[in-house]
Amino acid sequence: MKAWIVAVGSELLTPFRVDTNSLAITERLNAIGCDVRLKLVVGDDVDELAAVFARGIGSVDVIVCTGGLGPTEDDITRDALVRVLDVPVDVDEAIVDHIRQRFERRGLTMQAINRRQAMVPRGAVVLQNSKGTAPGLWIERDGTSVALLPGPPREMTPMLEALIAERLGPRSGGAGVFRRVLKITGRTESDVDARAQPIYSKWAASPVPISTTILAVMGQIELHLSAAAPSRAEGDHALEMAVRELVEGLGSVVYSVDGRSLEAVVGDLLRSKNLSIAVAESCSGGLLASRLTDVPGSSDYFERGAVTYSNQSKVKWLGVPEALIAEHGAVSEPVARAMADGIRTRAGSDVGIGVTGIAGPGGGTPEKPVGTVAIAVITPAADHVRTFQLLGGRDLVKFQSAQAAMNMLRLMLLDA
Amino acid sequence: MKAWIVAVGSELLTPFRVDTNSLAITERLNAIGCDVRLKLVVGDDVDELAAVFARGIGSVDVIVCTGGLGPTEDDITRDALVRVLDVPVDVDEAIVDHIRQRFERRGLTMQAINRRQAMVPRGAVVLQNSKGTAPGLWIERDGTSVALLPGPPREMTPMLEALIAERLGPRSGGAGVFRRVLKITGRTESDVDARAQPIYSKWAASPVPISTTILAVMGQIELHLSAAAPSRAEGDHALEMAVRELVEGLGSVVYSVDGRSLEAVVGDLLRSKNLSIAVAESCSGGLLASRLTDVPGSSDYFERGAVTYSNQSKVKWLGVPEALIAEHGAVSEPVARAMADGIRTRAGSDVGIGVTGIAGPGGGTPEKPVGTVAIAVITPAADHVRTFQLLGGRDLVKFQSAQAAMNMLRLMLLDA
Repeated sequence: MKAWIVAVGSELLTPFRVDTNSLAITERLNAIGCDVRLKLVVGDDVDELAAVFARGIGSVDVIVCTGGLGPTEDDITRDALVRVLDVPVDVDEAIVDHIRQRFERRGLTMQAINRRQAMVPRGAVVLQNSKGTAPGLWIERDGTSVALLPGPPREMTPMLEALIAERLGPRSGGAGVFRRVLKITGRTESDVDARAQPIYSKWAASPVPISTTILAVMGQIELHLSAAAPSRAEGDHALEMAVRELVEGLGSVVYSVDGRSLEAVVGDLLRSKNLSIAVAESCSGGLLASRLTDVPGSSDYFERGAVTYSNQSKVKWLGVPEALIAEHGAVSEPVARAMADGIRTRAGSDVGIGVTGIAGPGGGTPEKPVGTVAIAVITPAADHVRTFQLLGGRDLVKFQSAQAAMNMLRLMLLDA
Repeated sequence: MKAWIVAVGSELLTPFRVDTNSLAITERLNAIGCDVRLKLVVGDDVDELAAVFARGIGSVDVIVCTGGLGPTEDDITRDALVRVLDVPVDVDEAIVDHIRQRFERRGLTMQAINRRQAMVPRGAVVLQNSKGTAPGLWIERDGTSVALLPGPPREMTPMLEALIAERLGPRSGGAGVFRRVLKITGRTESDVDARAQPIYSKWAASPVPISTTILAVMGQIELHLSAAAPSRAEGDHALEMAVRELVEGLGSVVYSVDGRSLEAVVGDLLRSKNLSIAVAESCSGGLLASRLTDVPGSSDYFERGAVTYSNQSKVKWLGVPEALIAEHGAVSEPVARAMADGIRTRAGSDVGIGVTGIAGPGGGTPEKPVGTVAIAVITPAADHVRTFQLLGGRDLVKFQSAQAAMNMLRLMLLDA
């Protein structure tokens, strides 16, 4: 099956908003073997949208269209479709009642304008919207199924799920494109590709072909595997073999094969080993603590964090010897080690981390350029310190510092 | 002028990537009065893309197309355009030389495949790419100007600027759509709209009409003003009047009219008043420190931060009396006040902030539900403490806690 995804709304043609509904729609369509060939964004312009419908109907199997189903004159999706289908429109009094009840439950009175939302092109099926007033519509013409869904994601998503489960999924006979994502840190894109390519290149010709895409985001690498399979079971089976082979080939640089973030992976390791943690940060400026505490339930293992930007705070709060800073500089392995030790002792935690570096844009020197970051991790079993040379602007250095610190801890906990 | 923006690349039809180039392109096109009517995303499929070109050429003034200009067989943009134009293709040896030199400067040898990038449809103008090997192309046919630009933003952006300055801008005669963004915190969307609507509703009919859009992002409100004006000077003049009227009407809830983030605004206030700051956080988990230190140069005023998740760390590190926690609970105004005072005293800073709350999803009670956050701010001149009821999931509560704390400080510094 081939599909188009159409997003309607003039705000999506401004410099401020991208259509993101299409990502979730693509994922669900792919999972039932439906290939997205074209994505379009159209303003609140009935002529433009009618032209899009006219071109798509009869040429693709499915058109999923989001937005433009509200009650105002700007909401032109229904009108554009009706113009192309050239069918009469009926007001569905059941929908009017449903909308009226939604308003009344909130103590409000339905406006006459909302009757527009109850207009149904003859031959269309109404798709229930449990989260809002705008119902969806589903109509078939010339071999093309057209689905109109509302734009707000919280309304759109459950309606999409119902559409897939009840109408589109059964057509696929269980076939689809199934996916896995491997997340990797501490390696470059080209390094990961050099190791992974001999593994994944074989899969293009296997009975369940698997295609592999490598993506670099914020200095981190993701491998996206897609298997086109006749059933979910066969897809899952092929993908599990593939993931196992890649993890064997790449080793422990793979930190997640199930979508978990690095902070969640580290949090699960800490919880399973019953270890508490405290962190002392300079260049990462609190981002390490913030990411560790992004995980629900992290208060079970996160004891405290210190953001010691000034030298004075490193000395007075963490007990870093002034002589150490004078001798090696604030950005150095001995100071990172003393920060980790200082926070661990003061917090009485099992794990201590110290991060000190130069986030930029200022502060670099020829010996210690922007992006130089020293990280120390102390666990009950081991004590590691390393210096990284990170690339990118201030945000990226902060992010990668936190990432490198968590990854060092992860590898040490896996070893222990 | 009317434009289409076309993004080419199969990765943009997966669930993992959105086209974001189109936002920058829209902004630059709007600024020269060119209206974006349609955005399309096409895979690496020469038939689909040729069909898009065939529909667009002759029906819009400008088509800006990004991606698909690389050297591999997947890169089909040039081929699709040539098919529609039906012109011969010449290899431009000057481009071949340019590509060869780029490779040689990096100690690499140009592959034969890269000659594809030097293929120029007859009648097209070559657009120089200073950041990569793929040159752009510009061709006019049937009243439509077609620009092909590479996909990577760092290559695309300077080529877009040159295109606007040298080719498209001069056609506009200086007319364009000019913009301003007002950022607001501490008010709901409906509250901002109720106050702003009587002000901005007049502008639709003014000599330089200004349209206003209200956006809510992460619980924060933005007002986007767009003026369609015959010249930049007239646009700027109308927008400056408009911004002034809105700021007068809305008051100090407007924290930025020039794109600056709240952390940058607060940082500038601290710097101008020569004040240092230290923060103690519980529920925001380091995000307040991390955002304050996102600003380049923040080490000038940021002294330290404490992420005191455990009660013990609040007591031992910040000197919060245990009795205070026992009496009022860790999430309370007296504890927030003691945290602010404790960090300020220990850091010897001018400003101290204490944030304590329940980020969720666990930990809420009927009296103190998830989203209850107490914030205290102490400056040399004043001492404020307030309790907020924030909505949303853990991420949103963390973000809004940091936002509310910075906004309290901003208002206190403006008063002082």
